[in-house]
Amino acid sequence: MAPEAITFRGRQDGEEYEELEQIRRYEDFTTIDWIQESIAERNRRIREERARSACRGPRGEITPAWVWSQFQRLLSAGESAFVMTLVGVIIGINAALISIVTKWLSDIKMGYCADGWWLNQQFCCWEVDSDEEFCSSWHPWSTVTAARWLLYVIFAGVFAFVAAHLVRTMAKYAAGSGISEIKCILAGFVMQGFLSFSTLVIKSITLPLVIASGLSVGKEGPSVHVACCIGTVVANWFQKFSRSQGKMREVITAASAAGVAVAFGSPIGGVLFSIEEMNHIFRIKTMWRSFVCALVATFTLSVMNPFRTGKLVLFQVTYSRSWHFFEIIFWVILGIFGGLYGAFVVKLNMQAAAFRRKHLANHGVAEAVVLAVLTAMVGYFNRFLRIDMTEMMSILFRECEGGGDYNNLCQQSVQWSMVNSLLLATIIRMGFLVISYGSKVPAGIFVPSMAIGASFGRMVGIIVKAIYLTNQQSGIFSSCDPDLPCITPGTYALLGAAAALSGVMRITVTVVVIMFELTGALTYILPTMIVILVTKAVGDFIGTRGIAEETIRFNGYPILEQEDHSLDVAVSEVMKKDLTVLYASGMRVQDVGK
Amino acid sequence: MAPEAITFRGRQDGEEYEELEQIRRYEDFTTIDWIQESIAERNRRIREERARSACRGPRGEITPAWVWSQFQRLLSAGESAFVMTLVGVIIGINAALISIVTKWLSDIKMGYCADGWWLNQQFCCWEVDSDEEFCSSWHPWSTVTAARWLLYVIFAGVFAFVAAHLVRTMAKYAAGSGISEIKCILAGFVMQGFLSFSTLVIKSITLPLVIASGLSVGKEGPSVHVACCIGTVVANWFQKFSRSQGKMREVITAASAAGVAVAFGSPIGGVLFSIEEMNHIFRIKTMWRSFVCALVATFTLSVMNPFRTGKLVLFQVTYSRSWHFFEIIFWVILGIFGGLYGAFVVKLNMQAAAFRRKHLANHGVAEAVVLAVLTAMVGYFNRFLRIDMTEMMSILFRECEGGGDYNNLCQQSVQWSMVNSLLLATIIRMGFLVISYGSKVPAGIFVPSMAIGASFGRMVGIIVKAIYLTNQQSGIFSSCDPDLPCITPGTYALLGAAAALSGVMRITVTVVVIMFELTGALTYILPTMIVILVTKAVGDFIGTRGIAEETIRFNGYPILEQEDHSLDVAVSEVMKKDLTVLYASGMRVQDVGK
Repeated sequence: MAPEAITFRGRQDGEEYEELEQIRRYEDFTTIDWIQESIAERNRRIREERARSACRGPRGEITPAWVWSQFQRLLSAGESAFVMTLVGVIIGINAALISIVTKWLSDIKMGYCADGWWLNQQFCCWEVDSDEEFCSSWHPWSTVTAARWLLYVIFAGVFAFVAAHLVRTMAKYAAGSGISEIKCILAGFVMQGFLSFSTLVIKSITLPLVIASGLSVGKEGPSVHVACCIGTVVANWFQKFSRSQGKMREVITAASAAGVAVAFGSPIGGVLFSIEEMNHIFRIKTMWRSFVCALVATFTLSVMNPFRTGKLVLFQVTYSRSWHFFEIIFWVILGIFGGLYGAFVVKLNMQAAAFRRKHLANHGVAEAVVLAVLTAMVGYFNRFLRIDMTEMMSILFRECEGGGDYNNLCQQSVQWSMVNSLLLATIIRMGFLVISYGSKVPAGIFVPSMAIGASFGRMVGIIVKAIYLTNQQSGIFSSCDPDLPCITPGTYALLGAAAALSGVMRITVTVVVIMFELTGALTYILPTMIVILVTKAVGDFIGTRGIAEETIRFNGYPILEQEDHSLDVAVSEVMKKDLTVLYASGMRVQDVGK
Repeated sequence: MAPEAITFRGRQDGEEYEELEQIRRYEDFTTIDWIQESIAERNRRIREERARSACRGPRGEITPAWVWSQFQRLLSAGESAFVMTLVGVIIGINAALISIVTKWLSDIKMGYCADGWWLNQQFCCWEVDSDEEFCSSWHPWSTVTAARWLLYVIFAGVFAFVAAHLVRTMAKYAAGSGISEIKCILAGFVMQGFLSFSTLVIKSITLPLVIASGLSVGKEGPSVHVACCIGTVVANWFQKFSRSQGKMREVITAASAAGVAVAFGSPIGGVLFSIEEMNHIFRIKTMWRSFVCALVATFTLSVMNPFRTGKLVLFQVTYSRSWHFFEIIFWVILGIFGGLYGAFVVKLNMQAAAFRRKHLANHGVAEAVVLAVLTAMVGYFNRFLRIDMTEMMSILFRECEGGGDYNNLCQQSVQWSMVNSLLLATIIRMGFLVISYGSKVPAGIFVPSMAIGASFGRMVGIIVKAIYLTNQQSGIFSSCDPDLPCITPGTYALLGAAAALSGVMRITVTVVVIMFELTGALTYILPTMIVILVTKAVGDFIGTRGIAEETIRFNGYPILEQEDHSLDVAVSEVMKKDLTVLYASGMRVQDVGK
């Protein structure tokens, strides 16, 4: 054979080898044979139906056989419902526990409770009226600012170390958000151990640590992963599910809905998430399962009532005023921001991931600790970065009237310094998010994205308000009632959060419902939809894919994409034309050597 | 051939003949060849892509060809968006006009405006403070009750006559709700004229007449049909859509979402409706189109602001109290009611439809008039049946505190007479709904079902409140604060409405979102979900199908059902065993005669 042909062959081999290497990372590389699965499922159903096809007696009377067959029918219908309910209850309880531990760990960074070390600041000061500044039972670690800062940073580092170490030694799959892997699993990929009991335990333990460490990551993605682990573990106890990979996928879909539902307190948002993000093709039956599971999980969480506030909703707001049509101009700005933010974060995060794989593959723990320490060191000095992300959002979403004036946020006199703070918070958090998301600890991107969008949105809102106050007589503001405040900066924060979330995940309807369930801002459905419309258009034009899909591509997981793979190229163009051939006769040995 | 064989043959023929008769009712019986469609669509896309595959110059510089290809890309993406927007705008405008005319016609039954005949009661009395009872410009037709009643009935009859006559003579397809037919069309059936311009015009004109006539039917189903007509008519102006039945289906799906969105003022509910009810299989791209179309339509409606209230939401309520866990027992009752209501109404309505086809096929106009007159005669004497259904619901949903005490609804002294009124309203409306839905005028079942559920729910609520007030010390009420009202009957009305709607349509997530968008009752998402869970379970156990599916079956429209058609019967069991045969030889003529 001519050397060139061999080289060609060799190149092919190399590529194949690399591909195989990619694949070998999974101990068990199998995919579901859906046809086989559905035939097996159909046969099982027919068998069961035949077993209980006993009819009523000849004169329509009720026979014992008929009663027994009806009972069996009920039992079989009940088994699925029972599994879904059980999964939902456990997800709800787990979510409540994670919330309680997270809150306690977050508070312990700042001080401790003299009445009992197990109390967080809120419960420690439960008796104290919230208007009073001082709560005698709660002791800050130190009265010196520098010492407080140091302890804050040290705690962050320790938390991150413990979390990263646990993940590294006990359950590698607990790192990251897990949403992209679950998408692959739902599409038919079998990934041994990804939804195992050990992943469940380690991710549930490390998640509060990571959140409390102050890293710029969220708990919603991991919460979905944890929920899916619970679904798998529980469903494996039942033969009906453990024997059928197809049925198992239905449980996982439902569990993912419950995961979002408990993370946001948004049951319908969870159901829509399981439709819009998790599944390529969607069936009504799946939606119903998700509905039940999300309902039960949210209800359980609501019964557990982890914060004793009786509120499921994270940042309930009531806007006393509606919007004006001229505000559309500013919503479009927020929408464009969302689209650009998504494109930017997804691109940079992929570059960070490439860097991480190349240079930091074996330094996961150190990386997480350095990131946490850095984030804490810088964040402590910005009033919006220092506090918890959800707390920040609930402050930014509020109206100025009725106690919404946190830290002079609404004062016109300091508006430009506020704009600076918010802009800084936006940029710094964005930087940290890009490098933190994907590090080897449980990490989600939902809430950080919303927080970034909220700080940017509030900034735009304050600027719009300033423009209005200096140009009250201008034509575009003519629809404003001069006696009332016209612009509500809090609504811009809400819309900005929606835009950023939609931009980075590339989901639409789900975002509207989640924002709506989070805040209850009924009158702002239309504005939210308009903002997301713009975000989606910008994202489509740039050609961004969602971060979950990009992660799938980056990691080389097997998934069928919805794209059309027709390249419209003739076969002759791809084939080699000048082949080196060995003739059957008339060649000498030295010819072959060439 | 033996006579029996001939008879057998003949029977077959007869069956086939009947089937053909069924089919011949449609002038054009064709279905879409989805494979063919998708190949054509794919080829079109490849052609377009090739036409604008001009790249940048060799050194990456921007060439005119590249700019032109980018522009074309934008234009092509823009065409779909433009069509969706246009469809949305027209649907919004049409919905606003229908609302305005409906309101005016409803009011004209009671009196007229001296300041201008074209003003409805609300606008006629716009200047008058709503607290004052008297509005001098609005004149009732008569001061005598009997005369008022007579005029009320006569108007109802006239409206129904005009509507039914128009439908009969100008556009037969404008009758009914149209949702079941659209389901078939979306599944691939081609039904000439069902979504035509004439249907659009006639249905838009007759819908206000029917609603104003007071028939126990709603405008939501027809509103979906009208929206789909608009979608088809508009999309036919564009080659890209008129040439592709597949693309046309996407427009119709989006339009159906917009139809629900404008009917209820619930854009996200519309999107979910188009997923859950209209499509068997669902794709993300379709959801996005529905999103855009529903958004634009709702926004247009909001800009038109037909009632000058600035409210999109039909019955916004604010509940000042949250729910208690013990109320679950009563929610389960409401859920069971919803399931039974659905089974009952669907079954009886099908029987009414069979009766109508047999005996009233040529008396559509007379039937509608008689029904309208009867409904008006009876309804005038019940305080809840006399007023508009949406108005009734907004009254029933309200809390008692803060002006919710319409007609002493909240007074404990008259609670049993209220319970009687509500029970009567529930039963009478149910009876009229069963016989009215399906008559030869535009008629929907959404709002009447909700109204029935609301009156039943409020009744349950009043009873629960009465039980609470007499047993305050009982254990189950221990979680109530004795100083505050514990039971809010309005919430039971809300939950009852959700249960009835879910029971009759067999949709779940959509109902939750619609109820939520209609009322903004954020804290009642979980209760609504629980009620719908019970309704669904009851419906599944009884084996009810949704009314749209039953109508499809009844009318014999072609649609692929999702059921598994394996009958598990050996072929030998269906085949005839004792055949009469003619032997090739050894038979005489008289043998053949047998």
